[in-house]
Amino acid sequence: MKNFPIPTLIFFLLFSTISISQNAVQDSIMLKKIYNSALTDGKAYDWLDYLSNEIGGRLSGSFEAESAVKYTEAELKELGLDKVWLQPVMVPKWTRGFKEYAYIEGDAGEKTIANICALGGSVPTPNLGIKAEVVEVQNFEELEKLGKEKIEGKIVFFNRPMQADLIHTGSAYGGASNQRYSGAEQAAKYGAIGVLVRSLSLKMDDSPHTGAMSYGDAPANQRIPAAAISTNGAEYLSTLLKLKPNLKFYFKQNCKTWDDVASYNVIGEITGSQFPNKFMVVGGHLDSWDLADGAQDDGAGCVQSMEVLRLFKKLNYKPKNTIRVVLFMNEENGLRGGLKYAEEAKRKNEKHVFALESDSGGYTPRGFSLETDAANAQQIRSWEPLFRPYLIHLFDEGYSGADIRPMKENITVLAGLQPDSQRYFDIHHSENDTFDQVNKRELELGAATMASLMYLIDMHGVK
Amino acid sequence: MKNFPIPTLIFFLLFSTISISQNAVQDSIMLKKIYNSALTDGKAYDWLDYLSNEIGGRLSGSFEAESAVKYTEAELKELGLDKVWLQPVMVPKWTRGFKEYAYIEGDAGEKTIANICALGGSVPTPNLGIKAEVVEVQNFEELEKLGKEKIEGKIVFFNRPMQADLIHTGSAYGGASNQRYSGAEQAAKYGAIGVLVRSLSLKMDDSPHTGAMSYGDAPANQRIPAAAISTNGAEYLSTLLKLKPNLKFYFKQNCKTWDDVASYNVIGEITGSQFPNKFMVVGGHLDSWDLADGAQDDGAGCVQSMEVLRLFKKLNYKPKNTIRVVLFMNEENGLRGGLKYAEEAKRKNEKHVFALESDSGGYTPRGFSLETDAANAQQIRSWEPLFRPYLIHLFDEGYSGADIRPMKENITVLAGLQPDSQRYFDIHHSENDTFDQVNKRELELGAATMASLMYLIDMHGVK
Repeated sequence: MKNFPIPTLIFFLLFSTISISQNAVQDSIMLKKIYNSALTDGKAYDWLDYLSNEIGGRLSGSFEAESAVKYTEAELKELGLDKVWLQPVMVPKWTRGFKEYAYIEGDAGEKTIANICALGGSVPTPNLGIKAEVVEVQNFEELEKLGKEKIEGKIVFFNRPMQADLIHTGSAYGGASNQRYSGAEQAAKYGAIGVLVRSLSLKMDDSPHTGAMSYGDAPANQRIPAAAISTNGAEYLSTLLKLKPNLKFYFKQNCKTWDDVASYNVIGEITGSQFPNKFMVVGGHLDSWDLADGAQDDGAGCVQSMEVLRLFKKLNYKPKNTIRVVLFMNEENGLRGGLKYAEEAKRKNEKHVFALESDSGGYTPRGFSLETDAANAQQIRSWEPLFRPYLIHLFDEGYSGADIRPMKENITVLAGLQPDSQRYFDIHHSENDTFDQVNKRELELGAATMASLMYLIDMHGVK
Repeated sequence: MKNFPIPTLIFFLLFSTISISQNAVQDSIMLKKIYNSALTDGKAYDWLDYLSNEIGGRLSGSFEAESAVKYTEAELKELGLDKVWLQPVMVPKWTRGFKEYAYIEGDAGEKTIANICALGGSVPTPNLGIKAEVVEVQNFEELEKLGKEKIEGKIVFFNRPMQADLIHTGSAYGGASNQRYSGAEQAAKYGAIGVLVRSLSLKMDDSPHTGAMSYGDAPANQRIPAAAISTNGAEYLSTLLKLKPNLKFYFKQNCKTWDDVASYNVIGEITGSQFPNKFMVVGGHLDSWDLADGAQDDGAGCVQSMEVLRLFKKLNYKPKNTIRVVLFMNEENGLRGGLKYAEEAKRKNEKHVFALESDSGGYTPRGFSLETDAANAQQIRSWEPLFRPYLIHLFDEGYSGADIRPMKENITVLAGLQPDSQRYFDIHHSENDTFDQVNKRELELGAATMASLMYLIDMHGVK
């Protein structure tokens, strides 16, 4: 476990078997400077402290979201960028209302409290709540098989766990998330009066995890309330249902969808010294869910993206291309910010060459997930030796990120930072996504890794 | 971010550019089974829960250490191993006594409490404590330069921080730890009456970190009390010293070293089907410091090592060589268990072919640190494609582990599990090394990674 000081690094690069140019030596020195600065005088952690602990959860349309817009705009201005501005975007406004309340009721009327939370976008229950028998299913196929006869008038309980044997927890999340997103829409077709969804987490605990859901095109009178139940609660309910299939579940929530409200993407840029009209974007999303600070999802991605531009200013690096940080609004329940940025970029005919997103938490970076063609993927992989001293080794093809994807048709290279994924979904969208879950160095290493790729693409261009 | 089911894996291996044998296919299937079992029906986390929350901190010679011996012996017997036994070893017994107490005193007698803890092995202060002026130094060279004139009668404050720009925090720890280990011995030479050492942590907080220290060969009357001060406390004291160089520091501790007591290494084995007289060892250390549960240091390594043998039994894998789990006693303040095991192995002329240690925390595994020759290093690196689906990529030469190192002269391949290192020293040897710091999946992935290497070496032998 040795450190790699600059001379050793140069030596290593000079005498390694890959072909080495003067560029690679220069690049290795620049990467070392980037990592050093991020780890010794970085600002990401302090910014995240403020966003998490002074502002808090930043659900679109909330006072906190607007505070975060003002705060990050002011902080970007402090960096002395060439331009900082707000890009207006209309966003949905959904509020949770009072704390949800739920219990399981046995034959003799005995009650056990259950930990639930409304899913984002859900309609409320009636004022007095709803109480009904519960039908447990694993997936939509099972729902269809049971049909109207078995489901009408009942609460459908989607209880398919995330798959624990997958190494990337993001894959396990993807494999279970249709229950949350479309469960209510599907169950309503068979006459269900409410939906309970097992929280999307691999950790067994008592905290429910919220997240976006949709009723598709269903008319207002076919929209049924939907809630997440904690993983422990889901296991308990499932066990109890085997013993007492006729038990009843009661829940009450008074969430509400309001008219759309005005909000903003926060944007700052360093104008390119050679290609001012070519744009490279780095970003995360400024909004979060409301149950906690949203420190990992996605406060981390925002402050890491801001740190990329701070590092370039601090190291006096003048990018060839225009480098933009974009703090997108409303990723969680609408993606309006990502869509708006792409729409404006297209309308103004801005040539975007690269976009990088951080929206998988501020854990130790492992590499990147790339959406690009073979030539660009190969070029990025050729930089692997430069990243090796920082233990960055993943350069996989895969999903980049929700907010930059709307630009895909007009951009050659999209990338998502891939941090270690094991802890992320334990806290994601729950009351536990708080500042204390973030490790300062992990956050800083992520920012440095992002800055390094931005630098390399700025220096060497895309294919 | 795709999953790798077995068919895909086989396809990948068959058509990849490296030369692939039937062995590689069989190996890839076995690794998949190992990881699946660890992640879906593993026992490591439950064992660690018991060790941490039912037993607690396990300092050598304590009641808790003996409880841990009995508990792990019983659990190994539950696994149906071929042999489980206790290997007697005499260990030091040092106790902290009442909670340490310290303050900074200004010119007018105003006091500010400081968070300290005695270093392991330190002598106590006199009953009424000691109070003296403070001399801050960064290293032993500075100490020498100041000399007896400036140091005599004072408390020496070693305040060299761990280097934040190193990527492996273990290197940063190594670069700062001589202050803790030998600070008192060195300072006493110039007449210091006590030593304060900045806690070995990269995190700024209020928790002091203990750890082993030594007086070398100094006679009893030249042994001065030594304590760690929290990182926040160290910064505060250092700032204050610049303003008020004549401030005084008071501290009181009543730790004590007792006569050595009897204890044990806990050992279990699956006897080899082909080479019963060739031994492969996997282990961690059962003792811990006393300020917390020692969940990461090194409860994690113990339960991971136990899990390796559980996995082999569960998957009905009959190793060719004899596979031993060894839970070493007294790594923290004496290494008696590691020395005893090596001594006995030599005495009995047991041929050991491989030893693997986990003593860097149960965080996401990144790979291995290898102490071996070029041929074996090359063979291990040739297995990298098998490990790739599990995001294991580090096969570096480096330090293996304290407990297996005494066997080095008689063993060809030593390895240490390399988990992600960013969070480890934040909690290491402090009150924060508790069960809640351990992520279940990270712990399980580490165990599976260890079992995979044990399996591959068992199957293919060493060079």
